[in-house]
Amino acid sequence: MSMKRNMRVGAILKTLMDYPGEIFTLNYFSERLKAAKSSISEDIVILKSLFRELNIGSIETITGASGGVMVKPYKSDEDKRRLLEKISEMLMGKERLIPGGFLYYADILYQAHYVKDLGEIIAQRFVDERIDYVMTIETKGITLGLMTANYLNVPLVVARKDNRISEGATISINYVSGSTGNLSTMYCAKRSIKRGKRVLIVDDFLRGGGTVRGMMDLVSEFESEVVGVAVFIDNRSQKRKMVQDYYAVLAMDVAGDQIHLEPQGL
Amino acid sequence: MSMKRNMRVGAILKTLMDYPGEIFTLNYFSERLKAAKSSISEDIVILKSLFRELNIGSIETITGASGGVMVKPYKSDEDKRRLLEKISEMLMGKERLIPGGFLYYADILYQAHYVKDLGEIIAQRFVDERIDYVMTIETKGITLGLMTANYLNVPLVVARKDNRISEGATISINYVSGSTGNLSTMYCAKRSIKRGKRVLIVDDFLRGGGTVRGMMDLVSEFESEVVGVAVFIDNRSQKRKMVQDYYAVLAMDVAGDQIHLEPQGL
Repeated sequence: MSMKRNMRVGAILKTLMDYPGEIFTLNYFSERLKAAKSSISEDIVILKSLFRELNIGSIETITGASGGVMVKPYKSDEDKRRLLEKISEMLMGKERLIPGGFLYYADILYQAHYVKDLGEIIAQRFVDERIDYVMTIETKGITLGLMTANYLNVPLVVARKDNRISEGATISINYVSGSTGNLSTMYCAKRSIKRGKRVLIVDDFLRGGGTVRGMMDLVSEFESEVVGVAVFIDNRSQKRKMVQDYYAVLAMDVAGDQIHLEPQGL
Repeated sequence: MSMKRNMRVGAILKTLMDYPGEIFTLNYFSERLKAAKSSISEDIVILKSLFRELNIGSIETITGASGGVMVKPYKSDEDKRRLLEKISEMLMGKERLIPGGFLYYADILYQAHYVKDLGEIIAQRFVDERIDYVMTIETKGITLGLMTANYLNVPLVVARKDNRISEGATISINYVSGSTGNLSTMYCAKRSIKRGKRVLIVDDFLRGGGTVRGMMDLVSEFESEVVGVAVFIDNRSQKRKMVQDYYAVLAMDVAGDQIHLEPQGL
C-alpha cells in the first residue's frame, strides 16, 4: 500500500532526524515508502520549506554520485541566544559557587535536553570542516562530545586519565593539568583513530588550556590533524592560555565570589 | 499565515522527537502553529497511524489536567533483534579480544548511532516505572546512560571514581570493584539526587556486579530507591553475581579465547 503525502513527509523527516549528517538517497525513500522518486522529491521540497518557515534547521541536497538529502545542524541566532542566555542564568545561581573558585555545571551537561542543543550549536560551527572524529577527555565533556559527534555523524573518541586494560594498546602523552598545574598523563586506545584524519576537540571547561593542548599533542601522535577546538565554558579570568584558537559557547568571568557568564561568539 | 497539514504534521513530529518523553499540550501546538485545536487533533491522529504503520515508535496521548501528547520509546522486536544481532557480530571480531579476557567495545558506545538505539531499548523496558533519574558511573557507561535518560526525559547522574573539587560536597561509599576485586570508593555530588526519588542504574558491563551493588548502596545514601538495573553486556561466564535482578541487552560467554555474544531478553 502506498502512503499518503502527510505520512511520507513524516516518515522522511523521522529518518533524517534520527541520523543527522547522514546522506539518504531518493532511492532509499522511494523503495522504503513505495513511492515514485518524483513524489519523494516533492516531499523533500515540503520538508525544506517546513524547516525554513519554522527556522528550525536546514535540509540539504547533495548532488552527484553519492548524493542525496540530509539534515544539517542548524539553529537560528535567535534560538541560540535564547538558549545560551537561559543556561548562563541558571549557572549564575549563588548555590553553584564552589569554594576555590569552581562552578558546578555538571547537571547541565547531564541533561539530554541541554546537551543536545549545545552539541548542535558546536556542530553547526564546524559542519563544513569535514570532521572525521570528535575527541574529548573523561569525564564531564563526554556527553557534549557525543552530541556534537551525533550531529556531525562521526565517532566520538574519549581520552582517559588512567590506562585501562579494557582499552587494549594505548598511545599516551604527558600534559600539564590546568586545574592543578601538575604533570599528568592521558591515554587513548591505539585503534580509536586512524591515520591522516581530521579531528575536532570538544571539552567542557577551558582554564589554562593544558588539557586541550594535551589532546592536540595526542592527535599528532596518531598522525592526524586537529581542525578545531570547542569548549562549553571559557574562563576568561585566566588570561594566559596554552591554546589560542578555539570556539567557546559561554564565557565566564570571576571577580571575588561573583561569577558572570554570557554567550560567546554568536 | 496558517500552515498546510503536511507542514504541521512535520512540525509536530519534529518537536515530539526532539523531546521524547515530554508531554506537549494541544494548546502548545495550536498557538505555535496558529491552527485550531481540532486540526491539531487530526494531525496527531495522522502521526499515530504513521508510527503504527512504519512500526517505528509510539505516540501516546495522556488525558487529564496535565495531559497532552508525547513520543514514547518504542522499537519492534524485529528491529531490536536485527540491531542487537548486528552489534553482537561486530563485537565477536577476533581483533576485539584483549589479553586477560577483556573485550574492546568502547567504540560501539561512542557512536551516537548505536548508543541512541541501545538507550531507546533500555528506556522502552523501564518507561512505565516512573523513573526520576538515570545513574551511571564513569566512564564507558556515560553515553548509554545519557541516551537512556534522554528517552525517559529525566536527568543523568554520574558517579565518579575520584573525588573532584568541581563536584562540590559529595556522598561516597566503598565498593568491591569487579575487575580487580579491590576495595574502591565512588563519589556522587550531594546536590545531584533529591530524596525519595526512583532511580534506574545503567552500566556498560556486568561481571561480578560489585560496581552496580556500589551504585545501589549509593542511591540508598541519598534516601532514594533503585527501581531497575540495566547493563549493555552481561558476562555470563562469571556465575557468582552480587546483583540478581537486572536487564542485560547482550549476554557474553567466554571459553578460552572464544567469545560469544547474543541478544538478551527480547
